[in-house]
Amino acid sequence: MSNVRVIGGAPLPNLPWEERAQGSQEVVWRYSRNPIIPRNPFPGANSTFNSAAVPFNGKFAGVFRCDSTAREMQIHAGFSDDGIHWQINPERIRFIHEDAEINGWEYGYDPRVVWIEDRYYITWCNGYHGPTIGVAWTTDFKEFHQLENAFLIFNRNGVLFPRRINGKFMMLSRPSDNGHTPFGDIFLSQSPDMVHWGCHRHVMGCTGGWQSTKIGAGPIPIETSEGWLLFYHGVLTSCNGFVYSFGAALLDLDEPWKVIHRSKNFLIAPWEQYECVGDVPNVTFPCAALTDAASGRIAIYYGCADTVTGLCFTTAQAVIDHLKAGN
Amino acid sequence: MSNVRVIGGAPLPNLPWEERAQGSQEVVWRYSRNPIIPRNPFPGANSTFNSAAVPFNGKFAGVFRCDSTAREMQIHAGFSDDGIHWQINPERIRFIHEDAEINGWEYGYDPRVVWIEDRYYITWCNGYHGPTIGVAWTTDFKEFHQLENAFLIFNRNGVLFPRRINGKFMMLSRPSDNGHTPFGDIFLSQSPDMVHWGCHRHVMGCTGGWQSTKIGAGPIPIETSEGWLLFYHGVLTSCNGFVYSFGAALLDLDEPWKVIHRSKNFLIAPWEQYECVGDVPNVTFPCAALTDAASGRIAIYYGCADTVTGLCFTTAQAVIDHLKAGN
Amino acid sequence: MSNVRVIGGAPLPNLPWEERAQGSQEVVWRYSRNPIIPRNPFPGANSTFNSAAVPFNGKFAGVFRCDSTAREMQIHAGFSDDGIHWQINPERIRFIHEDAEINGWEYGYDPRVVWIEDRYYITWCNGYHGPTIGVAWTTDFKEFHQLENAFLIFNRNGVLFPRRINGKFMMLSRPSDNGHTPFGDIFLSQSPDMVHWGCHRHVMGCTGGWQSTKIGAGPIPIETSEGWLLFYHGVLTSCNGFVYSFGAALLDLDEPWKVIHRSKNFLIAPWEQYECVGDVPNVTFPCAALTDAASGRIAIYYGCADTVTGLCFTTAQAVIDHLKAGN
Amino acid sequence: MSNVRVIGGAPLPNLPWEERAQGSQEVVWRYSRNPIIPRNPFPGANSTFNSAAVPFNGKFAGVFRCDSTAREMQIHAGFSDDGIHWQINPERIRFIHEDAEINGWEYGYDPRVVWIEDRYYITWCNGYHGPTIGVAWTTDFKEFHQLENAFLIFNRNGVLFPRRINGKFMMLSRPSDNGHTPFGDIFLSQSPDMVHWGCHRHVMGCTGGWQSTKIGAGPIPIETSEGWLLFYHGVLTSCNGFVYSFGAALLDLDEPWKVIHRSKNFLIAPWEQYECVGDVPNVTFPCAALTDAASGRIAIYYGCADTVTGLCFTTAQAVIDHLKAGN
Amino acid sequence: MSNVRVIGGAPLPNLPWEERAQGSQEVVWRYSRNPIIPRNPFPGANSTFNSAAVPFNGKFAGVFRCDSTAREMQIHAGFSDDGIHWQINPERIRFIHEDAEINGWEYGYDPRVVWIEDRYYITWCNGYHGPTIGVAWTTDFKEFHQLENAFLIFNRNGVLFPRRINGKFMMLSRPSDNGHTPFGDIFLSQSPDMVHWGCHRHVMGCTGGWQSTKIGAGPIPIETSEGWLLFYHGVLTSCNGFVYSFGAALLDLDEPWKVIHRSKNFLIAPWEQYECVGDVPNVTFPCAALTDAASGRIAIYYGCADTVTGLCFTTAQAVIDHLKAGN
Amino acid sequence: MSNVRVIGGAPLPNLPWEERAQGSQEVVWRYSRNPIIPRNPFPGANSTFNSAAVPFNGKFAGVFRCDSTAREMQIHAGFSDDGIHWQINPERIRFIHEDAEINGWEYGYDPRVVWIEDRYYITWCNGYHGPTIGVAWTTDFKEFHQLENAFLIFNRNGVLFPRRINGKFMMLSRPSDNGHTPFGDIFLSQSPDMVHWGCHRHVMGCTGGWQSTKIGAGPIPIETSEGWLLFYHGVLTSCNGFVYSFGAALLDLDEPWKVIHRSKNFLIAPWEQYECVGDVPNVTFPCAALTDAASGRIAIYYGCADTVTGLCFTTAQAVIDHLKAGN
Repeated sequence: MSNVRVIGGAPLPNLPWEERAQGSQEVVWRYSRNPIIPRNPFPGANSTFNSAAVPFNGKFAGVFRCDSTAREMQIHAGFSDDGIHWQINPERIRFIHEDAEINGWEYGYDPRVVWIEDRYYITWCNGYHGPTIGVAWTTDFKEFHQLENAFLIFNRNGVLFPRRINGKFMMLSRPSDNGHTPFGDIFLSQSPDMVHWGCHRHVMGCTGGWQSTKIGAGPIPIETSEGWLLFYHGVLTSCNGFVYSFGAALLDLDEPWKVIHRSKNFLIAPWEQYECVGDVPNVTFPCAALTDAASGRIAIYYGCADTVTGLCFTTAQAVIDHLKAGN
Repeated sequence: MSNVRVIGGAPLPNLPWEERAQGSQEVVWRYSRNPIIPRNPFPGANSTFNSAAVPFNGKFAGVFRCDSTAREMQIHAGFSDDGIHWQINPERIRFIHEDAEINGWEYGYDPRVVWIEDRYYITWCNGYHGPTIGVAWTTDFKEFHQLENAFLIFNRNGVLFPRRINGKFMMLSRPSDNGHTPFGDIFLSQSPDMVHWGCHRHVMGCTGGWQSTKIGAGPIPIETSEGWLLFYHGVLTSCNGFVYSFGAALLDLDEPWKVIHRSKNFLIAPWEQYECVGDVPNVTFPCAALTDAASGRIAIYYGCADTVTGLCFTTAQAVIDHLKAGN
Repeated sequence: MSNVRVIGGAPLPNLPWEERAQGSQEVVWRYSRNPIIPRNPFPGANSTFNSAAVPFNGKFAGVFRCDSTAREMQIHAGFSDDGIHWQINPERIRFIHEDAEINGWEYGYDPRVVWIEDRYYITWCNGYHGPTIGVAWTTDFKEFHQLENAFLIFNRNGVLFPRRINGKFMMLSRPSDNGHTPFGDIFLSQSPDMVHWGCHRHVMGCTGGWQSTKIGAGPIPIETSEGWLLFYHGVLTSCNGFVYSFGAALLDLDEPWKVIHRSKNFLIAPWEQYECVGDVPNVTFPCAALTDAASGRIAIYYGCADTVTGLCFTTAQAVIDHLKAGN
Repeated sequence: MSNVRVIGGAPLPNLPWEERAQGSQEVVWRYSRNPIIPRNPFPGANSTFNSAAVPFNGKFAGVFRCDSTAREMQIHAGFSDDGIHWQINPERIRFIHEDAEINGWEYGYDPRVVWIEDRYYITWCNGYHGPTIGVAWTTDFKEFHQLENAFLIFNRNGVLFPRRINGKFMMLSRPSDNGHTPFGDIFLSQSPDMVHWGCHRHVMGCTGGWQSTKIGAGPIPIETSEGWLLFYHGVLTSCNGFVYSFGAALLDLDEPWKVIHRSKNFLIAPWEQYECVGDVPNVTFPCAALTDAASGRIAIYYGCADTVTGLCFTTAQAVIDHLKAGN
Repeated sequence: MSNVRVIGGAPLPNLPWEERAQGSQEVVWRYSRNPIIPRNPFPGANSTFNSAAVPFNGKFAGVFRCDSTAREMQIHAGFSDDGIHWQINPERIRFIHEDAEINGWEYGYDPRVVWIEDRYYITWCNGYHGPTIGVAWTTDFKEFHQLENAFLIFNRNGVLFPRRINGKFMMLSRPSDNGHTPFGDIFLSQSPDMVHWGCHRHVMGCTGGWQSTKIGAGPIPIETSEGWLLFYHGVLTSCNGFVYSFGAALLDLDEPWKVIHRSKNFLIAPWEQYECVGDVPNVTFPCAALTDAASGRIAIYYGCADTVTGLCFTTAQAVIDHLKAGN
Repeated sequence: MSNVRVIGGAPLPNLPWEERAQGSQEVVWRYSRNPIIPRNPFPGANSTFNSAAVPFNGKFAGVFRCDSTAREMQIHAGFSDDGIHWQINPERIRFIHEDAEINGWEYGYDPRVVWIEDRYYITWCNGYHGPTIGVAWTTDFKEFHQLENAFLIFNRNGVLFPRRINGKFMMLSRPSDNGHTPFGDIFLSQSPDMVHWGCHRHVMGCTGGWQSTKIGAGPIPIETSEGWLLFYHGVLTSCNGFVYSFGAALLDLDEPWKVIHRSKNFLIAPWEQYECVGDVPNVTFPCAALTDAASGRIAIYYGCADTVTGLCFTTAQAVIDHLKAGN
């Protein structure tokens, strides 16, 4: 298979990493010390799971979903030296903004973080008379400046691309409804200014098996020589509840609403105890990935059972070879 | 009460009109010869109802929802000398556009038409992997140029304001889901270019009674000295189905997401046989209003039982007095 | 068949009455001038239907469900010389009570009225964090004194017996849920003081056909030599909505939770246009009956399509013979 | 278009018939005196609608769905001199059979009747721990001999072909569920002996518009030179209930699970008052057709609003031309 | 904070007790040897969970929900020397009563026990044509005398106060529906005689987070100097099922329908394996509490995963301080 | 109790077997080394659970449900020397058949295997426009010859009897719907030729407790001197999902739709970690049983949590004694 190069990113030699266990043929493999973040890293936390980590000042920073013991859905900033051990602020992020209309915090969850041009952008599922995609930026993970919500309700899993494409910001998202939506495809929207969005395109829909009920973009897409590498979750409706697994897709570099390859098989599904048992049984839900552009190594952060945070590893080459082979 | 003036519109001396019946105290009264358009104005039509009429070259033109006998939802252009008798093209509108992605017609329904600046804009519920708001423009009701869909799915009842406000186009809409949504509020979105939309604001939600299940904007808002006059439909869930009625609201001229007054009582509800019996029982659904700026007279076109088109009349003064009185 | 006598009531020579049409074999027959009350007997009324009439000072008084054009469910007092032509107060009843907790009017509907001992008692479906049975009394239909709600939510169709039995007040009702309940049986509850209720007994459940989905007591039971004569409604779930019909049952005089006979066939079902078309299609719903103890004649008031009020006639003898014959 | 011949049937010069109204372009047109059977042709009947008529001894006989005033679903035999005026037995059919297990009548509805070889076969929706297809035969419409139920539950709309094909009896049906199924395709099953059925084939599924929710075979297929002409109903889910319309399909003569042509547009939909208003609003549901093989004229009996029976007319040529034209 | 005193109870020096683990800041902490009762303490038991323990003759007695291996819901008496090790009667309680109507045992579950004046009262969810609140009394836990059901169906979680207030017995309960109700508030009802109940008051409704779907009273309220201390469960609907947690509230001593304080955060939620995995995943459900009036120590019995019984500890002071602090 | 003999089977001295643990009174007991087949016995498998084993050439063969990591439902052949350690073909079974219509593989799951007369028959839930019962035969577990689907959709859990009865093949099945059916009884159908099926009989329905929602036949019935011994699963709807347990029934030898005895209590329910946690929580689902006719020993293969395969043991005598005792 062709040699995959990660482009548009930087070397990240201190990427958290663990080699695949000997004998294993897994394309993506779990960290042996999972979960890396327990449900309550600080008093008053009930669960800490769908987490977004990025390189920051030679170390790592991130935005974390921490549901409180009131079971309010909040997002918190956090910091780490090694990407594995995290100090998470016990106080949720308080966004700065001028318009009182946008000011009224209802809830926030499932954040993503990405560096674009000159700052970190955060997107998350933001409550404004229903769930939509909140947008904010920071440079220091201390002050967060909130922008307008990207879309009308109802929407979840808003994920920005790490650079403008054809001069526009681009965001993946999943139009949803006002409850625990049992359907949902991935769309792409475009913006000249990070405020007004249009030119919406359908990217991909549900197929069958592990991705038969709904799908949603996961970490920020990774730019590679073969296309944008997107990890995404999919949901299956079993005869007694849902199962959240995840796979990958390769999107066209210039027209990223065009799907080049797409997982037939899941890469990770809830097999481990900490993925099967918790506040929401049977969930593996990726929200962030760190990539070492030099080696192509990828460390994926994923929520486990909506309770704790796990880490798993792969390489761009391995995933793309897997996709190309039709798996 | 203060004297209401219609502003931002033109005199329309040939407005279809009929005086209120003697003794009636109705704020809005039905045309005595309703319905004005039968279910099948041309062969192959099953129903012709949610209809958008505008003044055009001294006469009238419009865009009409005509469900075919295949029960496909289509929109057709039509013309009238008097606003009452209509010739509707048996062929649905074929939109012109360059991008094949937008080209794939699925279905279209519930159109609205408005003149802004130099052309007529049409919005409608457009199928693109789900219902969203289609946008197009015409100058002659022969050639219709389609633009990008305004929003991500799922959305219905997209209604433009007749001019830019604070430099931006503004559109009301109702975020929905993928079925016959049993909920829905009215939101406002803003655009610098009729393509990218943002700065979304919640306008009003459901309250109780006739507007307890979902609400949606109706005709193009009418600019008056008291604010934007908006007719909107509301839905009640009875113990055996839905009832679609309509009322009115007055929105702030500069910040039209702010509601100054709002109907407590419906103005029209399904009382007549042609409103109660048809393909969808118990529906009165306004999509267009003609206004004579000189007299303040308003003629409202509304769908009846999702089958035929009716006409009813009022004046800006009467409705706004009614609203101010708390009714 | 044995001769049925109405006991426990008074002669009512001015009972509204119309003989059965010649050739008809109907056990219960409609008034030829139905509906007797239109949907809007006064401005601001949307519908006037489930109505409770009683003899009053040689004439008639009653409590009426009038949904406003806001589609708020209200109850209004009304008066009539002949039981057919009614003057209904445009203002809803304002109940008198001391406890602010009970004072908070949410909504009221489907009233029943009965004279017990020294006053008229009104029961209705009363909103108190959900629907329950409100209780009040009046002597003049001007001042209405509210008592405590009889039951915990969720309940509908509370119907008092016209006298104490074994020293206790007795009430029929239908335990329900918080929506448009698709199930429900008739129960009986007992009270020493009209405030505290207990000794709940199951009276009858759904069977099949027209009474397969839910049932509920209608007018105040009529005491006869054969037992308590109860008219009750039943609901069928068709392949496109509900159908509300009504029949009758005969309950034991001393232990009225024991059913002696019960309708197999409905007595009235929605066959007429004013019963099939309206705010709620296909509803015939009896809430009151006037009885002439001398002749056994009965005039039943029933809501039609939740929109207007109809009248129909029968005799105690005819209904009870019908029941005894197994129909 | 080619000349269509009805084959496999007999001339029926006394077919009920009325010419198409002048100026009408309808492919199927209603009888001007509809409905031909009222809801209560005999005391104790609530509705008489989905009806199966056949030529019988130079006149006509049939099996009729008559729901009683208990709203029990029954089937009754009936006779007519002209196919329009019917005498229906007030007593439901009592089937003869040996096995007590099959003997337990629960309910029966929506009959079809067909002459095959030497007797009339009746199929209907028969209650046996759920709805399935009952089968019986008669020669005189007095004695009806019940056979085994054709299928396991849950099934509706079982329709036999009028002759063996490739040596086997063939039946169309719609697998369903235990309620008012909101889905359903047409299948074909085969039997050597009218008792054991197998070799099940999918015939056609839902498409869109009027036939987007479920479909079901209507009258016995008519053998023509172009294929088996099948009328079938389709159901649309509107935003306030269902609409039952009907169209036609042409099936391969030898392998009748192969669809040659199929209606895009409905032929009849509920447009008339007696089709829109009744126990089940908005239903037109065909269960039988009489065909004059000589002229190709067809008279279709169809249930209206699940309340009364209507008649409409067409010709084999007209319908098949219509289908071939892609309508 | 003020010094909290437990009033209206007795010292209970032999209360089961374990100190909070060092370093823990939990307001309520689990017993380290949980679960204290396994799923099958005797042959034929499937699960033993929602359990009600009281002091009895210097030791302890109780009533236990034991679902059998037929999965019939039953309640059993049991005895313990230390409140931790229990002997549960393998035979379910057979209630004594005179009226055959009340005699027909359907099912019983989720008992509570309280000493009032001169006897132990037991309340439980009792099947009588639907779930309602059964009431009985005993003095020896051998003979149980059943009274009338307190309410009409549908009701669950009936919890008596341990003394009359203003001369009346008082009971908390949750009006429900006939299934696994996805809604429900806590109400209070009053009775002069433990048979007739009235003067119903709304106590508290759902808010958000862990108590957003339904709530229900848990153990018998504990009388303290600050008010009635009530533990109650709350349910959250996650994106894959329910989560049952519990918190506390402080009610007014004289008008206990008035809420003084209420948990914002849960006190216990399903975090342990035996709370997350079992017949019903993710359930912690308290039904009884033992209190030592001298020390203010409280031992709470709670069902775990609807499978086993756990024990946890706190003090009145700790919980009330926690509530007052707004947690 | 009478001495139970297994008839119609052969001695199977190499039956997998483990004695009941000392002190245990379980009628059916689990293998101490469960699960015997892990979720991924070969790469690409996600779960291996509902499994059908038979004696084969002195050893064992079987057909296994293996859901792939695409979560496609497939069936695979496998072989074992001891019935405990299995080699499962990584490739799914490719059925041989002539008719392309039957050829189109959609999905297959929950197989059963039985030797009848001269070959092994396999039945499974087969996708053909919905789930129905696929039928095939093999003699070597290498070539599988597919026959016609036994029934129309929707059906699951098709289980053949191991010999003709009264000259006919007989199959148990559960008529279902198109989703995760929340209802379902066991029926029996008969066939002269394994292709056409008729003479359908209701066998048993849901009762209460563990078998209150739906039931389905499990392994091939075992012929005993007391009747056909059938293991079957039952489903309970808890307040947070389903629980799949299993019990047994004894059917009449000649008229096997007649139930002689039936479990009141379950024999196995999900108590172990590997039964409670997995892709589908709380499932124990038997699909096959090996019987040693000489000793009456039975080894039951059952799916655990729809993830792995377990083994449990009993004897015909023990189960039938248990049934006869009314347990």
